[in-house]
Amino acid sequence: SRELFVLTYGALVAQLCKDYEKDEDVNICLDRMGYSIGIRLIDDFLARSAVKKCRSYSETTDMIAQVAFKMYLGVTASVSCNSAAGNEFSLILDKNPLVDFVEELPAERASLCYCNLLCGVIRGALEMVHLAAEVTFLQDRLKGDAVTEIGITFLRKAEDRKHRRN
Amino acid sequence: SRELFVLTYGALVAQLCKDYEKDEDVNICLDRMGYSIGIRLIDDFLARSAVKKCRSYSETTDMIAQVAFKMYLGVTASVSCNSAAGNEFSLILDKNPLVDFVEELPAERASLCYCNLLCGVIRGALEMVHLAAEVTFLQDRLKGDAVTEIGITFLRKAEDRKHRRN
Repeated sequence: SRELFVLTYGALVAQLCKDYEKDEDVNICLDRMGYSIGIRLIDDFLARSAVKKCRSYSETTDMIAQVAFKMYLGVTASVSCNSAAGNEFSLILDKNPLVDFVEELPAERASLCYCNLLCGVIRGALEMVHLAAEVTFLQDRLKGDAVTEIGITFLRKAEDRKHRRN
Repeated sequence: SRELFVLTYGALVAQLCKDYEKDEDVNICLDRMGYSIGIRLIDDFLARSAVKKCRSYSETTDMIAQVAFKMYLGVTASVSCNSAAGNEFSLILDKNPLVDFVEELPAERASLCYCNLLCGVIRGALEMVHLAAEVTFLQDRLKGDAVTEIGITFLRKAEDRKHRRN
C-alpha cells in the first residue's frame, strides 16, 4: 500500500517548505535527497527486476517508465523521444500517485516542484549504471498542466567528458 | 515495493536531525507528523480493509498488528497485553522494515526514536475512531534491544475526561 508512503512524502515536502523560504531551495534539496536514494535504490531495482543490460537510451528510458515506475509507484509512464540526436526523452504520467493527497500548491509556493525527489532518484540511479543525465520536470499537473512530464537528457559519457577536460 | 518508502523515510529523519539538535525534538516532530498522517490514513484503512467495528481494546490492537501493519509495512506484529486493566498492549516486531537501510544510530543520536512516526500514525488513526491512546516505543532493535516493541495505552474516553474536567 502506497498511501503511507505518499503521506510521508508530503510530510517531507512540508518540512522542507518550513526549512527553506525559496521554492528553488526546496527543489534543490528534494533533488539531492532523491539522488542519494537513487544511488542506493538501483541495487534493489537490478536485483528484483532481473533486467538485462539496456543497449540504448531508448531502452533505458522504457525500462524506467515501464518497470521501475510500476515497481516503486504502481503506475507506468508513457515515453516520447524529443530529439533527433536520440538523447532526450519524456516520461509522461497521466496519473501521479505521489500527489494523491495534494489538492493544489499554495499560491506562495508556485515554483515548487513537489515531486522533484523523483528526478533525483532517476538521476542517481542512472549514474550508478554509468549514465549521466539531467532530469527535470517539464510539466506538472499540480501547476495546471494537462499531464505530468519528466524530461531526461542523457549527457555524454562521464569518460568522454573527462577525456575532453584533459 | 517499499524500498522507495523506506529510503524516503530515512531522508525525512535525516532532514529533521539537521533541523533539530535535540533527539527529543526530532522525536516530537516525527510523532506530530505521524499524527497528521494517521488522521488521514484511517479513511484509507477502513475503506480497504472493510473491517467491522472492534468491540474491545484487544480486538483493536490485533487489527493494527495483523491488518494495518501488513497493509502499510508488509509485516505483522505480535501482540501482548501488559495490564490487568486490559488497556495496555505491546506490538512486537521481529523485523522492522522501516530500518532496512539503517545499520545503527550514530553515537550522538542515541535518544532518537527513529521510527517515531509510526507511534504518531497509530495515535492519530485511533483518535479518528474515538480512541484516545498514548503510543511510544518501549524497545528498539536500533538501540540494541532484542525486538522492536511499540506500547499502546488506551486512555479513558475523551468524553469521560471532558466530563471529569467539568
